Amino acid sequence: MKRQDEGLAFMLRYENVALYEDGAVRILDRRVYPAETRFVTCGTHLEVAKAIKDMVTQSAGPYTAAPMGVALAAFECRGMKKEEQLEYLRKAADTIAHARPTTAKRMETVCGQALRAAEKALEEGRDASLAVRDRVIEMNDERYARIGRIAEHLVSRFPDGGAVMTHCFAETIIGMMLKECRERGKTVRLFCPETRPFFQGARLTATCARDMGFDVTVITDNMAAFVMKKEKIDVFTTAADAICVDGHVVNKVGTLQNAISAEYFGIPYYVTGAPDPGHPTVDTVTIEMRDPEESLYAMGVRTAPQGVRGYYPAFDITPPELIAGVVTDLGIYPPFELGRYFDDAGGGRDRVVV
Amino acid sequence: MKRQDEGLAFMLRYENVALYEDGAVRILDRRVYPAETRFVTCGTHLEVAKAIKDMVTQSAGPYTAAPMGVALAAFECRGMKKEEQLEYLRKAADTIAHARPTTAKRMETVCGQALRAAEKALEEGRDASLAVRDRVIEMNDERYARIGRIAEHLVSRFPDGGAVMTHCFAETIIGMMLKECRERGKTVRLFCPETRPFFQGARLTATCARDMGFDVTVITDNMAAFVMKKEKIDVFTTAADAICVDGHVVNKVGTLQNAISAEYFGIPYYVTGAPDPGHPTVDTVTIEMRDPEESLYAMGVRTAPQGVRGYYPAFDITPPELIAGVVTDLGIYPPFELGRYFDDAGGGRDRVVV
Repeated sequence: MKRQDEGLAFMLRYENVALYEDGAVRILDRRVYPAETRFVTCGTHLEVAKAIKDMVTQSAGPYTAAPMGVALAAFECRGMKKEEQLEYLRKAADTIAHARPTTAKRMETVCGQALRAAEKALEEGRDASLAVRDRVIEMNDERYARIGRIAEHLVSRFPDGGAVMTHCFAETIIGMMLKECRERGKTVRLFCPETRPFFQGARLTATCARDMGFDVTVITDNMAAFVMKKEKIDVFTTAADAICVDGHVVNKVGTLQNAISAEYFGIPYYVTGAPDPGHPTVDTVTIEMRDPEESLYAMGVRTAPQGVRGYYPAFDITPPELIAGVVTDLGIYPPFELGRYFDDAGGGRDRVVV
Repeated sequence: MKRQDEGLAFMLRYENVALYEDGAVRILDRRVYPAETRFVTCGTHLEVAKAIKDMVTQSAGPYTAAPMGVALAAFECRGMKKEEQLEYLRKAADTIAHARPTTAKRMETVCGQALRAAEKALEEGRDASLAVRDRVIEMNDERYARIGRIAEHLVSRFPDGGAVMTHCFAETIIGMMLKECRERGKTVRLFCPETRPFFQGARLTATCARDMGFDVTVITDNMAAFVMKKEKIDVFTTAADAICVDGHVVNKVGTLQNAISAEYFGIPYYVTGAPDPGHPTVDTVTIEMRDPEESLYAMGVRTAPQGVRGYYPAFDITPPELIAGVVTDLGIYPPFELGRYFDDAGGGRDRVVV
C-alpha cells in the first residue's frame, strides 16, 4: 500500500485515522490523543456514524472513517442477495454521510465514491468490503497528493522565519505545510489557539508540529489578537469544513473572530482546500449546534456552576471579504472567483480536499 | 459597618474578598470558587502580596486585599518605634502594590490611602491595623457607591430584553449592573465568555448572575464573534484593570479581540471605571506576562503535550477607536475626552473605581 505519510505525525496516517479490517473499523480516539493512544472499534456502520457524531475523529478524519464505514456495511450485508446488498449499502452510505450536518455535502461525495467501488466489486463478483477499503486508501493517497500541492502554494506565502497562526486542527495540511517548509529550508514559528471545547489545537495541531520538530506555541483562544499584534503574525491559515462557491468559509468556531482580528491587523487569512460544489452559496450551510453542556467542561472537568446555560456551535462562517485567498491544489483563488476552480480542474467536481 | 452588598453575590462582599482580623488576612480563593468555598489565610503582608501575585484573588479583589495587607503590616510592626513603624509600613505598602505590574498604579493609590490611615492612627496613638481595616471598609463603601452610579449610566444603554456580553469577571459592576436592571424591571440575557486560562467568566461572572436570578449563558472564548452575530448582542461591556487618560483600556486578555469583533458587527463596547491619572498615556502600561506553563492547563488538567511552548499575557490593550464610551460615576465619556473626568470630579485624582 502506497503511503505519503513521511513527516506526518501519527494521527495523520490513514491506518491510524480509521481502517476497515476483519469486520470492524478501528478509529483513533482523538478525544484523548496524545495523552492516550486509544482506538474505538466499531462493529457496525451505525457505530461508525455514532463515532463521527461523537467526535471520536474530527476535522478530515471522518472523510476516511466514513467510507471505511461503507466497507464495514459491505461486510455486514455480504450474505444478502445482490440487490438487497446495493440497497443496504446505499442506506448505510447515506446514514454515515449525515452523521453531522455541516459537513454532509462532502461526506456524501466520499461515501458516494466508496459506494461506487462497492457496486463495481459486486458487479464483478469481488469482495466489496476489501474493494471499498482499497478504494479509500487510494482516495487518501489522491487527497494527500492534492494537499501536497496546496502546501506548496501556501508555504510560498510564508516569509522565511515567519510566524503563522492556525486554528483548530488543520489536519493533513498542517503536516504537509511543515514538510514543505522543511524541504525548502524555511523556518516558521507556529502559534496554535487551543481550540475549545475539545482542545484540538493544543492536543492535535501542537503534537503534530512538535513531532515534526517545529517551534510551536499553544495559546488560549482569547489570546489570538494579542499574539497577532505582539508576535507579528505574518499569516493566519486554516483548513475548512466547507468552502462555499460564493467564498464563504465554514470552519471550527473561532475562525471567524480570528479572521476579523487578522483583517484588523492587516494579516492575510488563507483558507486551504477546494470549493464545495454542494454549497454554491452559504445558504445551503447548516451550522451544527452540539450539546450545550459539552462547553461547560474542560478536559473533563466542570467549569461553570449548575444553573447556567451552555452553548456550542461547532462551526462558524467567515465571509469572503475577510479572506485573502483560498489555497487549492490548482493555485490560490480570490474568494470571489472560486467558480473558476471547477473549470481549471477540468470539471472534476468530486474532490474533497481537506 | 455599612454595606451595599444587597443583591451582590457572595464573593463581592468585602468580608469575603479579603478581611484583616486578629493578625491575619483571610482571602477567598477565587481560583477554586464556586466549586469550593475556601479561604487562604495570610499571616504576613508578604503572604498577601504573594496571594495577589498567585491570583488567589483578582479583578478588583486586590484593591481590597492589598490595603487589608497594609493593616496586617501595621499589626506586624506594632512593637517597633513609631518611625520604624512608618518606614515598615511604607515598604510594605510598596511591596504589596507592586505584586503585579499592570495594576501597580491603582494599587499604589489604594495602598497609599491605607498608609495615610495608618499614619494618622499612629499620630493619634490609635491601633493602626484596626484603623486601616476600617478605612478599607469605608473605601469599599465609597467604591460601591460610585459603581452604583456607573451601573445607572451603563444600564441606560441596554435595550429592555437586550443581550449583553461581558469578558472575564467584571467584579462589582456585574452585581451592580444586574441589581440596576432588576430595579428598573429591565430583563437582560447575559453571555459570558469563560475566560481562559482561569475561567473567571465561567466560574465567577456566571455564578454571580445565576445567584442574582438572571439568564446567563457561558460560552467558550472562541465563540464570542459567533454569539455577537447569532444572538444579536446589543452591548459588549467590561471593567478594566487600567484606563489610560488617552483612552487606551487595559483589561483581561481577550478584551481586545472581542472589541474588534464588536466593532465589526457594529456593537458598542462600553468600559466601566474611571481614568487612571497614573496612566496619562498607554506608554506607562506594562503588560504582565505570567508563567507560560499556566496556559497549558485547564481546570488543573494538562491540555498540550510536553515539548510545546505556552504563552500567557494576563492583559491586552484596546485602543480608544474601538471604545464607544467609558462609563464612569460621573457619566459616559468618549474615550478621547477622559481628561474632562478629573475636572468634573473636582480634582479628585485618587479614585479607584473597578
